[in-house]
Amino acid sequence: MAATRQGPLAGLRVIDLGTMLAGPVACTLLADFGAEVIKVEQPGTGDTLRHIGPFLEGESLFWNVEARNKKSVTLNLKAAEGRELFLQLVRDADAVVENFRPGTLARLGLDYEALKAVNPRIVLLSISGFGQDGPYAGRAGYDRIALAFGGLMHITGFPDRPPVKSGVSIADYQTCLFGALSLMMALYHRDATPAGTGQHIDLALYESVFRFTDVLTVAYDRLGQVRERQGNIGLAGAPGEHFRTRDGRYLILTISNDAMFGRLCKAMGRDELPSMERFSSHDLRWRHIHEINAIVAAWIEGNEVSSVTAALDAHGLAYAIVLSIDEIVADPHYQARGNIETVRHPRLGELRMQGVGPKFSATPAGSIAAAPALGEHTDEILTGLGLDPVKIRMLRTAGIL
Amino acid sequence: MAATRQGPLAGLRVIDLGTMLAGPVACTLLADFGAEVIKVEQPGTGDTLRHIGPFLEGESLFWNVEARNKKSVTLNLKAAEGRELFLQLVRDADAVVENFRPGTLARLGLDYEALKAVNPRIVLLSISGFGQDGPYAGRAGYDRIALAFGGLMHITGFPDRPPVKSGVSIADYQTCLFGALSLMMALYHRDATPAGTGQHIDLALYESVFRFTDVLTVAYDRLGQVRERQGNIGLAGAPGEHFRTRDGRYLILTISNDAMFGRLCKAMGRDELPSMERFSSHDLRWRHIHEINAIVAAWIEGNEVSSVTAALDAHGLAYAIVLSIDEIVADPHYQARGNIETVRHPRLGELRMQGVGPKFSATPAGSIAAAPALGEHTDEILTGLGLDPVKIRMLRTAGIL
Repeated sequence: MAATRQGPLAGLRVIDLGTMLAGPVACTLLADFGAEVIKVEQPGTGDTLRHIGPFLEGESLFWNVEARNKKSVTLNLKAAEGRELFLQLVRDADAVVENFRPGTLARLGLDYEALKAVNPRIVLLSISGFGQDGPYAGRAGYDRIALAFGGLMHITGFPDRPPVKSGVSIADYQTCLFGALSLMMALYHRDATPAGTGQHIDLALYESVFRFTDVLTVAYDRLGQVRERQGNIGLAGAPGEHFRTRDGRYLILTISNDAMFGRLCKAMGRDELPSMERFSSHDLRWRHIHEINAIVAAWIEGNEVSSVTAALDAHGLAYAIVLSIDEIVADPHYQARGNIETVRHPRLGELRMQGVGPKFSATPAGSIAAAPALGEHTDEILTGLGLDPVKIRMLRTAGIL
Repeated sequence: MAATRQGPLAGLRVIDLGTMLAGPVACTLLADFGAEVIKVEQPGTGDTLRHIGPFLEGESLFWNVEARNKKSVTLNLKAAEGRELFLQLVRDADAVVENFRPGTLARLGLDYEALKAVNPRIVLLSISGFGQDGPYAGRAGYDRIALAFGGLMHITGFPDRPPVKSGVSIADYQTCLFGALSLMMALYHRDATPAGTGQHIDLALYESVFRFTDVLTVAYDRLGQVRERQGNIGLAGAPGEHFRTRDGRYLILTISNDAMFGRLCKAMGRDELPSMERFSSHDLRWRHIHEINAIVAAWIEGNEVSSVTAALDAHGLAYAIVLSIDEIVADPHYQARGNIETVRHPRLGELRMQGVGPKFSATPAGSIAAAPALGEHTDEILTGLGLDPVKIRMLRTAGIL
């Protein structure tokens, strides 16, 4: 099935030479919005992600989420003929995405200069743990290493516990977003400005983390502050915590001004609090944050979530209940927004997963195509390069495909 | 100073109508790469972010990081003349970014149809907590609410503690990345494809979170798994934890295969472990994760960080030390990569902050311009619209500017 993809990027062709997460998912984002993404994989084994669970009937669900909407072509890049076919693909492509260790592409004879020689307008996005140069360029880097080196790990978690990772690989995901954004900026420059050219983009995982550390650097530089972990407490919420209800639900509540605090006290039936000196301003409440949080915690711990939220609603206070996935799947807002889409997989049947977003009014995205089997599109793509079935069979026998 | 901006987006003009974080920082990312971003602010008060600390000499450092590279124009959009001037700006702009509550723009007479009427090619990016439609569209939504509703909060942290927030506002930052990416996709469609048009993009904070929850949905749907918090433990690392050294440093170490485990045991001087039945494969080590983690923890707790890392280095094992900001600023790799840039502020002097990245070979970004004072560019921009100094003074006196 070579259905034309729909969305704002229909017509773009991207070659995905990455493995695992940051590189490949940058491509998936573009595929979600209509780009044709050709994933080039090692014959026999394919992307590492195909071998990471959870599994359903022997197939990686992880792979099936992250590699949706792509085509798969097998090519042995260490063989001369594989390399030559790759360069033929590059000739007709708009962009190539890779996340090998720096230097690997050059050893394969496929660095930016080699790609540029066959297609001067190619955009190459290189994603790596530590970037293409600098003293640590050769180091292995994955999600948690980037969070640790990028400064976010140190400030995440409770002061009396080790720094804590996020529930998903946020360094990888921020990098794939930043990578896709970078590619689109480069392609815009190339195709929508008069003297636009191709180019090489160098993006490090840790840089995608460090870029989004708000005032961490400047507050150290000018105020001497070395930020530490502070759990769920933050300057903007006093009181503010993730409180536990009697029936064991977590409720996020942060109060940032006097009016909100007054309404909260009414909701708690504690009208006397706002007039107490030490709770009479946000700044004073912040100085007594543990005391005021304990008062709110006692109220919330003593009640079921339904009565707490009813009281907060009645007093016009914003809050959030921490949702688990069974609740998300059943939520009417998720349903109304179409956030969960069903993908029809030829062997596994229906797979429900996070849908495509955001919503584009003029160029809406199409439905999601299932992640490809290893080499599913090899014949289609190589035929498009002019190879005949006999030649393709020979290459396959020789282990090139 | 109306210096022309450098980078792949030089020539693009974006109007930033947002407040605080997700909307405005989407624009900052484009400004970093050369777009001219005109921030439209309420006369007198300006963006809320200007009033959020930490402060230096009365100026928000938060604002100075996030609003760099922009111009500031004051306009009262509730006044007819303010609205009219805004539409004149839209006439010459490529994109508008807003993150009001859904319905606010329409009440101002400035919804997508109104913008389109003066500029059919405009791209409008609307960011909101819950999206432009659906049952919760009218709810307030900020970073932690999006994390809770989007599914990431429930799975982040330790099982015996409340779900924990990240050290920075990652829902806002993922949304600003996704928003900037969406804008570039829409602008690419408009300017680089034959029948391209403007359009309206609808992006919700929680959707930027939910999009990057890997197998959360499909593993529930097909395997019945409701994922819970598991601290720093993950399937890919056995052993794997954020271990504490004798001198109090946290060290991230995850072992994902037999070869690595063998090398770790050598580093620890515990050659007997790999031959023990219960530690003889990754799967078995995962089943005894607490026991094997405790063995590694005991070794690391008994040693200084320098001797642990020396032993790991000697055996070719990847790890990460969790760095605080004082260490990051002093790190030679950060220096070599130019990750920390110095911004010259007219009043505050030199401000060091996270630099512009990734690196573009053909269209490198320029140096960072200081965040603007409120209304700093009002005269420049309105003069560009053809207003004379007398008219500008009258508008200012009338509170329109």
